Amino acid sequence: MAEQGSAESICPKMQVMLAVSHSIKGYPKPSVSSRNALDWIITKLLRPCCKKEYKILILHVQIPDEDGYDDMDSMYTTVNDIRSHHKTEKQKGLALLEYFVKRCNEAEVDCEAWLSKGDPKLVICKEAKERQPDLLVLGSRGLGTLQRIFVGGSSSYCAKNAPCPVVIIRRDPSESPSDPLDD
Amino acid sequence: MAEQGSAESICPKMQVMLAVSHSIKGYPKPSVSSRNALDWIITKLLRPCCKKEYKILILHVQIPDEDGYDDMDSMYTTVNDIRSHHKTEKQKGLALLEYFVKRCNEAEVDCEAWLSKGDPKLVICKEAKERQPDLLVLGSRGLGTLQRIFVGGSSSYCAKNAPCPVVIIRRDPSESPSDPLDD
Repeated sequence: MAEQGSAESICPKMQVMLAVSHSIKGYPKPSVSSRNALDWIITKLLRPCCKKEYKILILHVQIPDEDGYDDMDSMYTTVNDIRSHHKTEKQKGLALLEYFVKRCNEAEVDCEAWLSKGDPKLVICKEAKERQPDLLVLGSRGLGTLQRIFVGGSSSYCAKNAPCPVVIIRRDPSESPSDPLDD
Repeated sequence: MAEQGSAESICPKMQVMLAVSHSIKGYPKPSVSSRNALDWIITKLLRPCCKKEYKILILHVQIPDEDGYDDMDSMYTTVNDIRSHHKTEKQKGLALLEYFVKRCNEAEVDCEAWLSKGDPKLVICKEAKERQPDLLVLGSRGLGTLQRIFVGGSSSYCAKNAPCPVVIIRRDPSESPSDPLDD
């Protein structure tokens, strides 16, 4: 492989932001659409001869429960119990990010991953505004209009409101997992 | 600049399809949104150290008049008159493509340009299905809902229906040309 040292100094890295989610089954399994989105970045977008010219910014937004409790069946008897629960939520998020960071390491491409909390579509746009990536990549389950109303359509909101170009990696219906909960 | 010869054989080119349009003023001036889209490809997407790994597919779709006549005020007295008019339409389209091909040549990136006729959004999706690019890039004037109804919104149709990932290069309102007809 040719050395790219000389090019590094004259060319800023392409910053590609990827927002990822877990499967419907829950942590730590990544959603099929998020995996598809990373696959597209690695196999189609990245040029193998100059991987040093990319940086992937991986964001996972955790949705807080409406009432502030993540699990109503749990009992907390001490402050430490509650603290450890919150830690666990964070740990689950980190375990999800680990999958994507590992994939980037294997592909030998620079990355940075972080967690955030809130309404995913709003937080993704806010983070994109702060980080100013060259491209925001989002996976999409390719839901119909009715499904989108109930399941939520972060990707189309971001396509309209993000401050940078957005590419949505849609899925072919044939790529749906046999168990919908793996989605 | 480092030689990229060794990488060429192991890595297929990234095929980036760009659909372009003329300004509202007409041929041969390219629309601001199409120029913005090419600017984004050249300055953000293309990695300077491996330009040989990209190919830009430039498509311009000409819209036939509903009644089949492009200019109702013109008089045609011979078959040759009519033929030369059609040639002129094609030549105008080619003059538009020339701008984009020249920009690609200057940027030293491989390209291919062609004309097609029909409803732009349908033809763009059809051509994308045939050429199977890795990415379809479209400029957008960032019209509001009401404007889109009258001016037409090819980009959002393509984002939903193209067989490949689509990135829409939206424009900041501040980037609108001082003369709206230059748009």
